[in-house]
Amino acid sequence: MTIEALTERICAFRDARDWQQFHNPKDMAVAIAAEAGELMQHFVWKTQEQTQQVITDKRAEITDEIADVGILLFELAHNLNIPLAQAMQAKLERNELRYPADKARGNNLKYNEL
Amino acid sequence: MTIEALTERICAFRDARDWQQFHNPKDMAVAIAAEAGELMQHFVWKTQEQTQQVITDKRAEITDEIADVGILLFELAHNLNIPLAQAMQAKLERNELRYPADKARGNNLKYNEL
Amino acid sequence: MTIEALTERICAFRDARDWQQFHNPKDMAVAIAAEAGELMQHFVWKTQEQTQQVITDKRAEITDEIADVGILLFELAHNLNIPLAQAMQAKLERNELRYPADKARGNNLKYNEL
Amino acid sequence: MTIEALTERICAFRDARDWQQFHNPKDMAVAIAAEAGELMQHFVWKTQEQTQQVITDKRAEITDEIADVGILLFELAHNLNIPLAQAMQAKLERNELRYPADKARGNNLKYNEL
Repeated sequence: MTIEALTERICAFRDARDWQQFHNPKDMAVAIAAEAGELMQHFVWKTQEQTQQVITDKRAEITDEIADVGILLFELAHNLNIPLAQAMQAKLERNELRYPADKARGNNLKYNEL
Repeated sequence: MTIEALTERICAFRDARDWQQFHNPKDMAVAIAAEAGELMQHFVWKTQEQTQQVITDKRAEITDEIADVGILLFELAHNLNIPLAQAMQAKLERNELRYPADKARGNNLKYNEL
Repeated sequence: MTIEALTERICAFRDARDWQQFHNPKDMAVAIAAEAGELMQHFVWKTQEQTQQVITDKRAEITDEIADVGILLFELAHNLNIPLAQAMQAKLERNELRYPADKARGNNLKYNEL
Repeated sequence: MTIEALTERICAFRDARDWQQFHNPKDMAVAIAAEAGELMQHFVWKTQEQTQQVITDKRAEITDEIADVGILLFELAHNLNIPLAQAMQAKLERNELRYPADKARGNNLKYNEL
């Protein structure tokens, strides 16, 4: 499914409820951070082994939080006239330059530490 | 562009750097929350009018943060075998039930307050 | 009550449970961000008027989230040998220089925008 | 130093700049989450060993972020008439009940999983 088609559906849902008035960029960014916090909440204090257990035990909840972040992110990009797929590709291209495969391979340093 | 095609490109970028070893679900959820925090950071203390100015002045940075959240979110869903588009549609359907258009129209109450 | 006395009590609680092994700085920073996210969650989508209502309706929960952030913050500072009161005072002094009262009065610009 | 004395100093700093008008509870909770996100940002992707290195290399920045969270947290509690030390003690007492030392010792389960 395309990002555009899914974004259309998200906006239709929003408009049927006349919610655009609440969806200013600040409140949307706050909502995205709050949902990302809920996603992260599942892993607080967990060891690597416990993380795998969480994935199994909380699959429905985690799927739900990921969907929430996605729904808000797609709408925010749309509201700001940011073509999301293009922005993501542009960022990947920039990361190709910042993290050349031969220098970045197998390590997790930041580009300014490579 | 489809979510699947973009996800493939993200995973190719990651695998060329042998980064899958670092991309466990916990660290990915933490990274998503951190990037969402950076996106939100642009709007801290801002009034509604200032928010509009931020959108104009910081367009490149905001586009970048949105792309970062998207890239990580697509990969996390993929790593967990969660079909993202389907998960988002399922959540929209659940929200259709939790927020019936006639009850939710024009207000921003939570579903359990409607 | 002093920060030090409260911090001692927090560490006694932790040590009686042998939890220091889990309280590495990364997991503590993640826990602080997650608790701060829960605090923020109460205000997502809320207007200024609704914010006042939230304060009244969710007083116990908000008090609880604030306490959670405080407990973790005090312990993290202690674990890192950072004297919290001194660090906060040093930051206030730095902010005195970055935000001179006559330039910063009545506006919410960042120090680099003044 | 007492929390009260430090809080007085924070409020004096704020009032000299006439900033109370901006410090509504929602914006303060958002600012706390954003600062907590900056603190967490230092540890993103880091392994346990790298976490120790971060503590050494970024000591000043980490001290700064911890101070930022503390300053905002003390003021928010004050603005809401929440006695912070008392709220933290009450939460510790509740946690004493939720996490009995003999059941919680040496494990990181949540109280509802014990």
